[in-house]
Amino acid sequence: MEFTAAQIAGIIGGKIIGDENAGINGVSPIENGVEGHLSFVAQEKFSDYLQNSLCSVLIVSEHLLKEQSYKPTIISVENAYLSFQILMNLYQEMQSKKSGIEEGSTIHQTVKLGSDIFIGAHTYISEKAIIGDSTQIYPQVFVGKNVKIGKNCKIYSGARIYDYCVLGDNCIVHSNTVIGSDGFGFQPTEKGFEKIPQLGNVIIENNVEIGSNCSIDRGTIGPTLIGEGTKIDNLIQIAHNVKIGKHNVIASQTGIAGSSTVGDWNMIGGQVGIVGHVKIGNQVKIQAQSGIISNVKDGEVLYGSPSMNAGEYRRNYVHFRNFADIVERINKLEKNSKDSTNE
Amino acid sequence: MEFTAAQIAGIIGGKIIGDENAGINGVSPIENGVEGHLSFVAQEKFSDYLQNSLCSVLIVSEHLLKEQSYKPTIISVENAYLSFQILMNLYQEMQSKKSGIEEGSTIHQTVKLGSDIFIGAHTYISEKAIIGDSTQIYPQVFVGKNVKIGKNCKIYSGARIYDYCVLGDNCIVHSNTVIGSDGFGFQPTEKGFEKIPQLGNVIIENNVEIGSNCSIDRGTIGPTLIGEGTKIDNLIQIAHNVKIGKHNVIASQTGIAGSSTVGDWNMIGGQVGIVGHVKIGNQVKIQAQSGIISNVKDGEVLYGSPSMNAGEYRRNYVHFRNFADIVERINKLEKNSKDSTNE
Amino acid sequence: MEFTAAQIAGIIGGKIIGDENAGINGVSPIENGVEGHLSFVAQEKFSDYLQNSLCSVLIVSEHLLKEQSYKPTIISVENAYLSFQILMNLYQEMQSKKSGIEEGSTIHQTVKLGSDIFIGAHTYISEKAIIGDSTQIYPQVFVGKNVKIGKNCKIYSGARIYDYCVLGDNCIVHSNTVIGSDGFGFQPTEKGFEKIPQLGNVIIENNVEIGSNCSIDRGTIGPTLIGEGTKIDNLIQIAHNVKIGKHNVIASQTGIAGSSTVGDWNMIGGQVGIVGHVKIGNQVKIQAQSGIISNVKDGEVLYGSPSMNAGEYRRNYVHFRNFADIVERINKLEKNSKDSTNE
Repeated sequence: MEFTAAQIAGIIGGKIIGDENAGINGVSPIENGVEGHLSFVAQEKFSDYLQNSLCSVLIVSEHLLKEQSYKPTIISVENAYLSFQILMNLYQEMQSKKSGIEEGSTIHQTVKLGSDIFIGAHTYISEKAIIGDSTQIYPQVFVGKNVKIGKNCKIYSGARIYDYCVLGDNCIVHSNTVIGSDGFGFQPTEKGFEKIPQLGNVIIENNVEIGSNCSIDRGTIGPTLIGEGTKIDNLIQIAHNVKIGKHNVIASQTGIAGSSTVGDWNMIGGQVGIVGHVKIGNQVKIQAQSGIISNVKDGEVLYGSPSMNAGEYRRNYVHFRNFADIVERINKLEKNSKDSTNE
Repeated sequence: MEFTAAQIAGIIGGKIIGDENAGINGVSPIENGVEGHLSFVAQEKFSDYLQNSLCSVLIVSEHLLKEQSYKPTIISVENAYLSFQILMNLYQEMQSKKSGIEEGSTIHQTVKLGSDIFIGAHTYISEKAIIGDSTQIYPQVFVGKNVKIGKNCKIYSGARIYDYCVLGDNCIVHSNTVIGSDGFGFQPTEKGFEKIPQLGNVIIENNVEIGSNCSIDRGTIGPTLIGEGTKIDNLIQIAHNVKIGKHNVIASQTGIAGSSTVGDWNMIGGQVGIVGHVKIGNQVKIQAQSGIISNVKDGEVLYGSPSMNAGEYRRNYVHFRNFADIVERINKLEKNSKDSTNE
Repeated sequence: MEFTAAQIAGIIGGKIIGDENAGINGVSPIENGVEGHLSFVAQEKFSDYLQNSLCSVLIVSEHLLKEQSYKPTIISVENAYLSFQILMNLYQEMQSKKSGIEEGSTIHQTVKLGSDIFIGAHTYISEKAIIGDSTQIYPQVFVGKNVKIGKNCKIYSGARIYDYCVLGDNCIVHSNTVIGSDGFGFQPTEKGFEKIPQLGNVIIENNVEIGSNCSIDRGTIGPTLIGEGTKIDNLIQIAHNVKIGKHNVIASQTGIAGSSTVGDWNMIGGQVGIVGHVKIGNQVKIQAQSGIISNVKDGEVLYGSPSMNAGEYRRNYVHFRNFADIVERINKLEKNSKDSTNE
C-alpha cells in the first residue's frame, strides 16, 4: 500500500513543507530511516534528523521547525507523537481486518457466530461456544465448549481457551497463550498426590490484552478473574482463583500464585513472583524480580525478594555491595576494642 | 445437567435437612454463592454461610449443624470437604469423556491405536506411534514418530511430543507443553557454536501431570526422566538429561538445568532455578525464587539465591532489611572508638 | 537402521579391536549402556566401562587403550568425543530429512516455495510468504503474510511466525515459539491504557537456533533483531526492538526488556532479567538469576540482582550468610563500648 504526503497530511490535519506527492510505503524509527518510509520527530534531541533523515516524509511538531526547507517532505502538526499514533492506528486497522470462515476450520453445529467475524483454517470451536460480532479468530486456535468470546476480539494463532471460559469485548490474546488450564491443586496422600478437580473457569473482562505463551489457570471452584483494561505481557503465570482488577500492567515472566488478589492501576515489573493468598492494593509499583510474600497497601513501591520499600531496598543494597568493607571495619573495631581492653 | 439434593445425598451417603427436591446446576465457592448452585461448609469460620448462602444446596460437616432448619437445603455428612471432593471427581469424569476419531485428524497408517480412545481434529500422529486404551488426545496435538503414550492419558490441545518420547499411563499434559525439544547443547568453535545432536528422548512415568506451556527437553544421549506421580505446574523448564524422581511437586516457572537429578517427594516452589549437574535428595523443600547451585541433602528446607537453610535466610534477611541502621551503629562505634583514642 | 562396527570405523577413520561385524541399532550414555548400542569413552574416569559396558561397540580415545582385548568391540580413534560427534551429526541428518507437501496444509496461492522443502499437515502459510530451498516446516505451524524464511531451516510443530518477520538460512525454531507477537506498548490515559500499534517486525539472521515456548516480540517501529549464530534456549522473552548481536548463548527463562542491545559472544545464564534501554557489550558472562539494570562493559562477569562483579557478589554473599553472627559481633562491640564508657 502506498500513500502520498498529501494524503497523510489530510488525515492528521497537517501542513506540508516540500513535495506533497512524495510517496511512502512503510515506516521507520527515526534513528534508522529508510528511503520511501515515514517517521516522526517530536523531541528537540532528534531534530538533527530533520535535515539528514533518509525517510521521504517526516511528521514534525511545529515548534521544532526553524528552517524554510528540508531534505525530506515535512508534515507540520502540533504534536507529532500523537499524530503519528493516530496514523499508525489507522494503518493497523486497515491492514489486519480479515473476515469470513476459512475452509478447513472445525466448528461445531451448536456454535453461535456473530456477524462480520473471521475464523481461520485449522481452528477448532467446540459445542455451544458463542463468538461475538467482528471477532477475528486466527488459524489453529482451540475454543472449548460453552466458551463465550465477546465482540471485536482478536485471538491469534495457537491460543487455547478451555471449556466454559469467558472473554469480554475488545480483547486481544496472542499466540500460544493458554486460558483455563487446570489449577495446580493436589491432595497429598501416602500413595501420592490426588488431583483436586478444577471446576471453575476464567473470566476476562473487556479491553484486556494478553501476550504470547501465557498460562492462566481456571479456578478450582469459581473463576480466575482478569479485570477490565488490564494488560498482560508474555510468558506470565496466573494461577487458579487469582483475581486481578482493572487497568493493571504486568510485565513479562511474572507469576501470581493461587487465590491472590490484585487491585486496580498497579504496575508489576518483569519476573516478579507473588505468593498465594495475598492481597495487593491499588496503584502499587513492584520492581522487576521482586518477591511479594505478604499483603501490599495502596501506593506502595516495592523491591527485593522478599520485597520491601524500594528506596529502602536500594539503600540496603548499597551496603550489601560494600559488605566486605563493612566487615573489615568491624574487624578493626574489634582489634581496637581488644587493644583497649589489653591496655 | 441438573441434580437434586436427594440424588447427591444418595451418592455421598448424606442426610438431608430441608427440601430434598432442591435442584442444582453448578457449583460455587462458599464466599460467592449463586442460586441453583452447590457448595460446602467444612470449617467453623464459614458457618455463617449456613443461614445466608445464596446456594440452593450445601454439603456440611455434621459437627457444624446446631439449628433445626436452614435457608438452603443441607446435606449433612461426616467430612464435608471429602464428600465434596468425591462428588467433584464424579462430576468431572461424567463431563469430560470424549471418544472416537474426529474427521480432519492426520494419523499415519502405521500408528497403533488402543480401544476407546479420542483423537481430535487437526491432531497429527506420526509413523509408528502407539496410543494406549482410553487415552484422549485433544485437537491440534502433535505426536512424533515412534512415540508411545500409555493408557487413560489426557493430552490437551497444542501439546507437542517429539519423536521417540514415552509417556506412561494416566498422564495429563496441558496445552502447548512441549516434550522432547532439543537439549541446549553447542560446541564452541572460533566460527560460532556447533550444534551437538540431541539423540536421547523424554520418558515420563505413570500418573504424571504437566501443566501448560512447559518445555521438557530430550536428553543428548539417553533420556530425560520424570518419575511416577510427579506433578509439574505451568511454564517450567526441564533441561536435557534431568532425572526427576517420584511424587515431586514443582511450582510454576521453575527451571532445572542439564543433567541435574531430583529425588522423591520434594516440594519445589515457583521461579526456582536449579543449576546443571547437581543432586537434590528426597523430601526437600525449596522456597520460591531460590537458586540451587550445589547438592542438597534429604529433608533440607532452602531459601535464597544462592540458597541456604530457610530459617537462616530469613534471619539474615531481617538484618539486610535493617542494613542502614546496622551501618549507622558501626559509624557510631567508630566515632566512639576515635573519641576514646583521642581522649 | 542397523550399522556394523566396520561401517562406523570406516566413516570416522578408526581401528577396530574385536568383532568388526558387531551390529548397533542405537546409542546410549556410557553410564547406562544397552546391548546393541554404541557409546564412547574419551576420559580416563570412564575407562572402567571399557571392560564392563553392556554396549556392543565403543568408540575410544586411543591413549586410554592399554589391553589386548575387550568385551565390547572397540573402535580406536585419536579423539573419541569428536569422532562420536561427527557420527551423531551424520546420523541426525540421515534420520530427520522429510520432504514434500502434506495433504491438509493450507498454503496461500501467492506463497513462493523453494525446492526440496517439507510442509506438514495443518500448517498455514499466509499470502506472499517466501520459503527457501530445503526448509522443513513441521505440521501445525503458522506463517504470517509476507514472512520470509531462508534456506535449510527447520521450523517445528506449533511455532508461530507473525506477518512480515524474516528468518535467515539454517535457522531452527522449536515448537510453540512465537516470533513477532506485539510488543508490550501502551499509552496511559485517564480511562485506561491505549494500545500503541506495533508496526515493526522481527529479523533473525543465519544459523540462529531458538528453543521451545519462546516469545520474541516485533518492534514498535523497526525490527527486533537476533544476530547470526546466536542460540536461544526455551521459555525466553525478547521484547520489542531488542537488538542481539552474533554468537550469543542465552539460557532458559531469561527475559530482555524493550530496546536493550546485546553485543557479540556473550553468555547469559538462566532466569536472568535485563531491563529496557541498556547496552550489554561483548564477551560478557551473566550468572543465572541476575538482574541487569545498567550498561555492561565488554568482558564483565556479573552476578546478583541488581548485578555486580561476580567475584564481589560471592564475597559479599558469604557475609550475608553470616549476617546474624556479624550483628552479634556488633552487639558485643556496643556492649564493650558502653562498659568502657560506664567505667
